[in-house]
Amino acid sequence: MGEFMTETQQRPAGGRRETETRERRRPIGTQTHAGPGPLDGQEAMAILERTRGSVDPELRAAIDSLPGSMRRIALYHFGWEHADGTPAAGNAGKAIRPALVLTAAEALGGPSARKAAVRAAAAVELVHNFTLLHDDVMDRDTTRRHRPTAWTVFGDADAILAGDALQALALRLLAEDPHPASTGAAARLAACVVELCEGQHADTALEKRACADVGLDEALAMAEAKTGALLGCACALGALYAGAAGEDVEAMDAFGREAGLAFQLIDDVIGIWGDPRRTGKPAGADLAARKKSLPVVAALTSGTPAAAKLAELYEVPYGKGGMAADEETARTALAVEQAGGRDWAQVQAADRMARAMQELARAVPEPEAAGGLLALAEFVTRRST
Amino acid sequence: MGEFMTETQQRPAGGRRETETRERRRPIGTQTHAGPGPLDGQEAMAILERTRGSVDPELRAAIDSLPGSMRRIALYHFGWEHADGTPAAGNAGKAIRPALVLTAAEALGGPSARKAAVRAAAAVELVHNFTLLHDDVMDRDTTRRHRPTAWTVFGDADAILAGDALQALALRLLAEDPHPASTGAAARLAACVVELCEGQHADTALEKRACADVGLDEALAMAEAKTGALLGCACALGALYAGAAGEDVEAMDAFGREAGLAFQLIDDVIGIWGDPRRTGKPAGADLAARKKSLPVVAALTSGTPAAAKLAELYEVPYGKGGMAADEETARTALAVEQAGGRDWAQVQAADRMARAMQELARAVPEPEAAGGLLALAEFVTRRST
Repeated sequence: MGEFMTETQQRPAGGRRETETRERRRPIGTQTHAGPGPLDGQEAMAILERTRGSVDPELRAAIDSLPGSMRRIALYHFGWEHADGTPAAGNAGKAIRPALVLTAAEALGGPSARKAAVRAAAAVELVHNFTLLHDDVMDRDTTRRHRPTAWTVFGDADAILAGDALQALALRLLAEDPHPASTGAAARLAACVVELCEGQHADTALEKRACADVGLDEALAMAEAKTGALLGCACALGALYAGAAGEDVEAMDAFGREAGLAFQLIDDVIGIWGDPRRTGKPAGADLAARKKSLPVVAALTSGTPAAAKLAELYEVPYGKGGMAADEETARTALAVEQAGGRDWAQVQAADRMARAMQELARAVPEPEAAGGLLALAEFVTRRST
Repeated sequence: MGEFMTETQQRPAGGRRETETRERRRPIGTQTHAGPGPLDGQEAMAILERTRGSVDPELRAAIDSLPGSMRRIALYHFGWEHADGTPAAGNAGKAIRPALVLTAAEALGGPSARKAAVRAAAAVELVHNFTLLHDDVMDRDTTRRHRPTAWTVFGDADAILAGDALQALALRLLAEDPHPASTGAAARLAACVVELCEGQHADTALEKRACADVGLDEALAMAEAKTGALLGCACALGALYAGAAGEDVEAMDAFGREAGLAFQLIDDVIGIWGDPRRTGKPAGADLAARKKSLPVVAALTSGTPAAAKLAELYEVPYGKGGMAADEETARTALAVEQAGGRDWAQVQAADRMARAMQELARAVPEPEAAGGLLALAEFVTRRST
C-alpha cells in the first residue's frame, strides 16, 4: 500500500473541510499498469470469478424458488434467460458487492466465515438488483448490461413487482439463515435499503433542480446514500458473519462507503472525460444529459467565472445552444475543468480512498489478510469499462 | 358459531370440486343485524380501535425513523399529514391485518402474547401499505381512503421509493425484534410479499386477457395470492408470537386465507350489485371498468347462453355499445346473474367462510378464545362500505 500512497495535505475545491490524508501519486482512474501484482486488477478479477462460483448457485436457487412470472423477469434481468425464456449465457454484473461480503468475512474470520457468508452475499446481490430494476423504471433507462432493461421488455408494473419480490427474497434468505449473525445482518441490510431509497430520491430531486440551487454537501450525501451505503453494508455483513467486534463492523462499513464514494467520483470523471472506446459511452454523455454529477456540482459551486459559464451552458438543453455537438461537449467539459471540478473530483477520490485504507487498516491490521479487500477497492475505483 | 351455520352440500357453479361444507342461512353480505352480539360488528369495531391504540405508536415511531423524503410520503399515505406536511387527523385504514395479528396472538397465547406481537402487527401493516403504494402506481388509481393517491401527489418515482422503504422498514422491525418468534415471522412475511407480487401480477395479466382465455381456477388463485395471503400471514404471525405449534400456525394461516377469499368474493359481489349509497362507488363500477372480478369470471366460464352474452358485452368498451349507461350496467349485471355468477360467488363465499371456521376451530377450540377472530372474519366479509 505504502508504495502507492504518499502523505500530503489536500484542500478540495467546493468548500469541503480540510483533511489530512494520503494521496496517490497518479490521479486515480488514469493509471497504466506496470506488470502483475495485487493492484493490477488480476487479483480482483480472480476474487470476482471465485465469488460468482460460490454465490451464483445460491442466487439461482433463490430465484428458482420464485413463482413463474417473477422468476422469469428475474432470470432475464440477471442475464440467465432471454426475453423469450430460452437460456442465455448470463451477464449478471461484476458481483462486486457479494465479493466484498465474502472477502470481508474471510479477512476477519478466515475461510469458514467466507463459506458461512455465501447466503448473505446472495442477499446483498439481490438487494442491489432490486434497486437496479426499480431505478431503471424511474430513470427510464433502456439499456442495462448491454441488454434492454426489464421494464422495456415486461412493462413497468412487472419490473416493479419483480424488484419488490427480489427485496423480499433477499430478506427471506437472511431470515432463513441459521447463522447467529443473520438477524443482525437482516436489520442492517433493511436499514441500508431505506438509505438507498433516500439516495435515489435525492438524486432525482437534484437533477430536477436549477444549477443555482444545488449544494456540494448534498450531492456528496446523495452519492454516499446511493452508492456508498450498499458497498459499506456488504463489507459490514461480511464482518458480522466473521463474528467481528462492533467497532470492526463499523470500520468495515466505513471502508466500503469511502471506497464507494471514491468509485462514484472516478465514475463521474470518466462520464465526462472518459475515452469512448474504453467506456462504450459517447464522449461527454453525462454532460449531454445535463447530469449533475459530482465534478459538475463541484464546478457549479466553485464561485469561479467558469462556474457561471457552466451554469449558463447547463441551463440550455443540449443541442439547443447553436453549437455543433462536439464543440458544445468540449466547451462544457472545459468549463467544468476550469472551474476546478476535475481536480476536485480526483483529489476527493484520492482522499476517500485514503480514508477507506485507514478504516481497512483499523479493522484488518495484517496486510496479507487485507489484500483481497484492497484489491477490490482498487479495482472499483480504477474501472473504466 | 353453530347458530349461524348449517351443514349442507354445495356445488358452486364454474366447475369447482364438490365440498362438504357449512353454509350460512342468509347469503353473506346481505344480513341485517338483529341486536347486539359478537356478530353485529360492534365487537370487531372495538377490536380494531384497540388495535389502532397499540399499533399506531409503533407504526409512527417506525415511520419517524425514515429519512425526510420517505417519511413525508409515508405520513401522507397513512393520512397523518396533508400533502403540504401539516398534520392531518389520520385515516390509515381499518387495521384489519394488525388486528388479526394481535387477536390471533391473544387467542393462542393470552394477553402477554398479544403485547409481544405489537411490532409484528406494525410490520404486517407496513407491508400492506407498501403494496398499496405500488399497486396504486401500477393500476393508475387516483383515490385511496378518500384522498388523492401518493403517486398523484409526489410522482411515480417517489411513491415507488416510499413503498420500497416501507417494505424494508417492516422487515427491519422484525429483524430488530428480540422475540424468539421474530425470525420465523420475518421469513414468513417475506415469503408472503413474494406471493402478493405474484397475485398483483396475475391480476394485471388477467385483466389484459380476452374473456375466452380466463379460467376460474386461476382467478381464484389470483385472489388467494393477492388478498388471502396477507390475511393468512397476519394470523400465522400472531400464532408464531403465541408460541403455537406448527400445525396451529398453519391452521391460522388457512383461517386467514379462507376468510380473505370470502371477503374478496363479497367485495366483488358488492362491486356489481352494491348499493351506491352504501359503497360510495357508482353502481356497477367494476362492470364499467370491465373488471374480471370473481363473479364475472364464474359467469364467463359457466358455459351458459348468458356467458356468451356477457362476453359479447365485455369485449366492447363501456359506453361504446350504443346503450345508455344505466341500461348497459343493468344488462351486464343481469348477464352475470343469469350465468350464475352471483349465486356462485355467494355460495363460494359461504364455503370459504365455513372452511375458515373449521380451521379456526382446529387452532383455537375454545369458543371464547376464538370469539375475537370470528368477529373479525364476520366483519370483513360483511363490510359493504
